[in-house]
Amino acid sequence: MHILIIGAAGMVGQKLTAQLLATATLGGDPIDKLTLVDVALPDRPASRTIAIETQAADIAAPGVAGQLVASRPEVIFHLAAIVSGEAELDFDKGYAINLDGSRFLFEAIRQAGRNEPYCPRVVFTSSIAVFGAPFPERIDDTFLMAPRTSYGTQKAIVELLLSDYSRRGFLDGVGIRLPTICIRPGRPNKAASGFFSSILREPLAGQEAVLPVDESARHWHASPRSAVRFLLQAAEMDTALLDMRRNLNMPGLSATVGEQIEALRRVAGDRAVALIRREPDAMIAEMVENWPKDFDTARASALGFTAEDSFDAIIRVHIEDELDGQVRP
Amino acid sequence: MHILIIGAAGMVGQKLTAQLLATATLGGDPIDKLTLVDVALPDRPASRTIAIETQAADIAAPGVAGQLVASRPEVIFHLAAIVSGEAELDFDKGYAINLDGSRFLFEAIRQAGRNEPYCPRVVFTSSIAVFGAPFPERIDDTFLMAPRTSYGTQKAIVELLLSDYSRRGFLDGVGIRLPTICIRPGRPNKAASGFFSSILREPLAGQEAVLPVDESARHWHASPRSAVRFLLQAAEMDTALLDMRRNLNMPGLSATVGEQIEALRRVAGDRAVALIRREPDAMIAEMVENWPKDFDTARASALGFTAEDSFDAIIRVHIEDELDGQVRP
Repeated sequence: MHILIIGAAGMVGQKLTAQLLATATLGGDPIDKLTLVDVALPDRPASRTIAIETQAADIAAPGVAGQLVASRPEVIFHLAAIVSGEAELDFDKGYAINLDGSRFLFEAIRQAGRNEPYCPRVVFTSSIAVFGAPFPERIDDTFLMAPRTSYGTQKAIVELLLSDYSRRGFLDGVGIRLPTICIRPGRPNKAASGFFSSILREPLAGQEAVLPVDESARHWHASPRSAVRFLLQAAEMDTALLDMRRNLNMPGLSATVGEQIEALRRVAGDRAVALIRREPDAMIAEMVENWPKDFDTARASALGFTAEDSFDAIIRVHIEDELDGQVRP
Repeated sequence: MHILIIGAAGMVGQKLTAQLLATATLGGDPIDKLTLVDVALPDRPASRTIAIETQAADIAAPGVAGQLVASRPEVIFHLAAIVSGEAELDFDKGYAINLDGSRFLFEAIRQAGRNEPYCPRVVFTSSIAVFGAPFPERIDDTFLMAPRTSYGTQKAIVELLLSDYSRRGFLDGVGIRLPTICIRPGRPNKAASGFFSSILREPLAGQEAVLPVDESARHWHASPRSAVRFLLQAAEMDTALLDMRRNLNMPGLSATVGEQIEALRRVAGDRAVALIRREPDAMIAEMVENWPKDFDTARASALGFTAEDSFDAIIRVHIEDELDGQVRP
């Protein structure tokens, strides 16, 4: 089996790659080849059994999508995107990469199938940014897409295209709306949602973190490990079960910042919690208030998707996967 | 005020044109100029007070959208579309006209606003085809878009673009999801939904009509006169009331075919009803079963949009507007 990952150099792409190399199978079939693509050349991991190809490519550039599917990969993970903040700052770039790039990919697959049958599984990472306030207390599987960002708009449009191309038999798509990934490994970044991770990640490494919102702020989370599991399951699942609704809210954990902090206290103690410094930021607080807080993910649950059920578990994933089991404070 | 109608040669476009010429004002402002555009040259109606320009143009062709907005119309009615059946048969053409054509228009407006402020009201006719089964008994204002046709997909995508371009201040959009228009004037056509109109229109003209579904089949209707009123109200309304949700389910009448027939009997008598010939068609019956049947249009109602509340009223609109008050049988 040949698997193509577009957006392979990102955090989720790297973890997905590592997992595919570790198991060397997908859906019971051995993986022979892995093509890793990103706008900057991805690192080439070592493997004795799997042929690995790496490529720097911009899917929004003419001809690139056609070239990527020319070797007819059976499974395509489409993770590539300009992030929310950048798509908001650069309107043209966001639409070019997030909308046109995805459409070029789907269209290249359709064209590839014109001469010889070709209908790859396409797993697309969408986002809870397709939703916009006002929300019900829990967002269910039939709630409308009403994005309040260009990024969310682009994700919603690609979901619709994925469904239509799947319905027409041009590809076999699954769109998964990921919760906010927590604890995101690496350095603090300027994303408005970054504090959800940093208030745990920095104290676990013995460093100070800034909390810009009230402890009552509620949000929707899943670990990087869950995100990778969602992707693999979306690649392996029986899509006949989706009927025509190809896009799924992924399960997650609804928790307040206060609940995050209490979990940190249980796992890493008061010294870790003491490293969180309150620095209220009204703008961030207002943005967070307009983000989804909780979901009823009945469809995904019925299909067997599961996420962490406590923040203790989310923190433990980080300690195991990123800190070699060690907590500093 | 300068008004541009794209898709002016269609049934709704012609009725809208006639209404604008009759009142010669919109939102209290006098209309100086009306530009009528369609893929085939629209008829040029007579007016002593309003300058009328007609133009044959394909909005999916390069440069056309820019040329259409160069004169900076204050209000743009965007009614142009490839219909459902054709968009399903010709995948490329449907996406080119219904998606790319609309995006070119929005983008041309955005570009026109870069040098000198420009933010026209854009009224876009969407469709209940953005919804797909399974449905709740009544579809409310927060139900998901899950189209089961390429046409519905294209309409849903343009709605999302309309919202995002409005949110960014590039244009001031209102998308209205029209019910099935009944009684559609003119000759019988091959649209699967055509019988909803023809079982009334043909008998009212003393001609036979074919009913392919059971009398229990339920659907969502509004008259052509209501459709024009919706468009005018969408052009005149205070869009601040929409917040970020720029697309509205329009009110309509949920009725069974049996209720349509009983209304025909009340308005035109048993002889009219006797002209309806049952000719069950399982394929049409199944399609109709998968179309929306009823809506709770609370948002539109709160904004003052109203439709007919009986099929008697819908039939009377047709007799007044199309038959000079005369019923044949």
